[in-house]
Amino acid sequence: MSDLRDTKVVALAGGVGGAKLADGLADLLSGNLTVIVNTADDFEHIGLSISPDIDTVTYTLAGIANPETGWGVANETWNFLAQLERLGGPVWFRLGDKDLATHILRSEELRLGRSLTRVTQDFTRALGIAAHILPMSNQPVRSFVKTEEGLMPFQEYFVGRHCNVAISGVVLEGLQIARPTPEVSLALGDPSLGAVIFCPSNPYVSIGPIVDIPGMKDLLRASSAPVVAVSPIIAGATVKGPAAKMMTELGQTPAAAAVAAIYRGMIDGFVIDEADGDQAEEIRNMGIAVCVAPTLMRDRNDRSKLARRCIEFAESLPRKGQS
Amino acid sequence: MSDLRDTKVVALAGGVGGAKLADGLADLLSGNLTVIVNTADDFEHIGLSISPDIDTVTYTLAGIANPETGWGVANETWNFLAQLERLGGPVWFRLGDKDLATHILRSEELRLGRSLTRVTQDFTRALGIAAHILPMSNQPVRSFVKTEEGLMPFQEYFVGRHCNVAISGVVLEGLQIARPTPEVSLALGDPSLGAVIFCPSNPYVSIGPIVDIPGMKDLLRASSAPVVAVSPIIAGATVKGPAAKMMTELGQTPAAAAVAAIYRGMIDGFVIDEADGDQAEEIRNMGIAVCVAPTLMRDRNDRSKLARRCIEFAESLPRKGQS
Repeated sequence: MSDLRDTKVVALAGGVGGAKLADGLADLLSGNLTVIVNTADDFEHIGLSISPDIDTVTYTLAGIANPETGWGVANETWNFLAQLERLGGPVWFRLGDKDLATHILRSEELRLGRSLTRVTQDFTRALGIAAHILPMSNQPVRSFVKTEEGLMPFQEYFVGRHCNVAISGVVLEGLQIARPTPEVSLALGDPSLGAVIFCPSNPYVSIGPIVDIPGMKDLLRASSAPVVAVSPIIAGATVKGPAAKMMTELGQTPAAAAVAAIYRGMIDGFVIDEADGDQAEEIRNMGIAVCVAPTLMRDRNDRSKLARRCIEFAESLPRKGQS
Repeated sequence: MSDLRDTKVVALAGGVGGAKLADGLADLLSGNLTVIVNTADDFEHIGLSISPDIDTVTYTLAGIANPETGWGVANETWNFLAQLERLGGPVWFRLGDKDLATHILRSEELRLGRSLTRVTQDFTRALGIAAHILPMSNQPVRSFVKTEEGLMPFQEYFVGRHCNVAISGVVLEGLQIARPTPEVSLALGDPSLGAVIFCPSNPYVSIGPIVDIPGMKDLLRASSAPVVAVSPIIAGATVKGPAAKMMTELGQTPAAAAVAAIYRGMIDGFVIDEADGDQAEEIRNMGIAVCVAPTLMRDRNDRSKLARRCIEFAESLPRKGQS
């Protein structure tokens, strides 16, 4: 296998699935990995600025993520939440005692005028993470889902309602006035960048908000690095999260090929699971190269192996502007 | 002993010592007790609105106070603080996991425009406290101590520096524009009020800020209820806190009689410890009635006994405007 230590990669990630692949990439690339993280599911809750995807990626790369829940910190305690309930406070969003430190310190730093990028960098440094974790934007973008009950904030839909309401669309408030950060632009503009990888995250509410920020697609197009995406759909279902359910409700077939169609024009290659090998031809017909690989990440070894396959796949593709 | 169940009492209290006597009074009086609590040592810390004296009184009356520390909640855990330290946040002010619920919810409610009075009422109700706990004012008053290093916020002096710096004065920022709350005015203006009791709290930074709020002394004077104070100094020392040290540094003798002199003109009676019986004459010569009693509160029984002595002492004094 090739030595990847000098390969520079930018990954785009949402929550759990994205964090797992980012973790595999970080294992191989260390400081040569930059993860651009979705912030459209950030929200403000009891005065705290909460960034669920940034925290999931950060905790995962720091090795302190809770393996059972997929969010929050391992060996968490819940004494704050129990007391909050006693005082009549809202407990639908479960904030652990350790996790709270992140939210309280971030909220304070943001109030003091620091950017979300700077705060995130401080946290990754404090937690000993060599990779660069970057919010997609320093400006707030907020996801809402369209439902029969009206527009619903994403966390209310996702956490409060366990996604048990049908959606007819996704609205990204603030998107048009948000911009990629200078750090995101620099990472994607690096002439020595080897690959851009869309992690197996929700195409509507994780990867979508990142690539739809005005200017982001231009940055992807301007990069000479091949762009490859990993399907979040395996055999018609998601490992975690509502992507497949959302696809169905939005009139799509929940299939790897349908995700490839969403990314068409942005990606050069698509990684699908062995279970979906029969869709390779359909995807190749979109002008997208296909890599069939085991994409289910059950353990750290799986993460690392999939990460390596993604990088090698990207490196096998022609650099853009050079074909 | 007289039946005190129908006696209405207003107590003025700061932190630990004040909370103990307030607890004894609450045992006897239940919903007929109103505690007006100092808020001058409130402060803002990592974005949280912290009211140490209100919390100490509330936790004590709720029966959930930490008996060892004198502040915070019993059986507290510290996982938030440990994680905050790991992230490089400030840990000089120790915030427990359970205690945090109070601060986060209060901060949010205040941001939403609710008054500190309303928030405090909500918490006491949620914790099953029958007595009325009222902040002295809804406007912020903030204590600073004058030191050789300049003006120092009170919590930095008290918690951060363990009072180990000499002071030359106390400055109460915001005092002149603060006013007693409507609830405080109503409680002190109640014609059936039986007694006003200054708990054994620091005369400079606990009772001082309460009575120095413009309008508060008028409310005390207008009440027909006798006003009695309990000395926070026993045999030249304090049970807890820097009152004696502050008195010395401010050129006073740390003695019960010196506290009585500070309260002169506001109080009708003064309760001193049996250890200080030799000062009774000096205090009586100030025109203040004296009750000599055991004032050290080691357990709940002591609290209750001292509370009863205070009420009976007040009831033995002539009602004002009727002598």
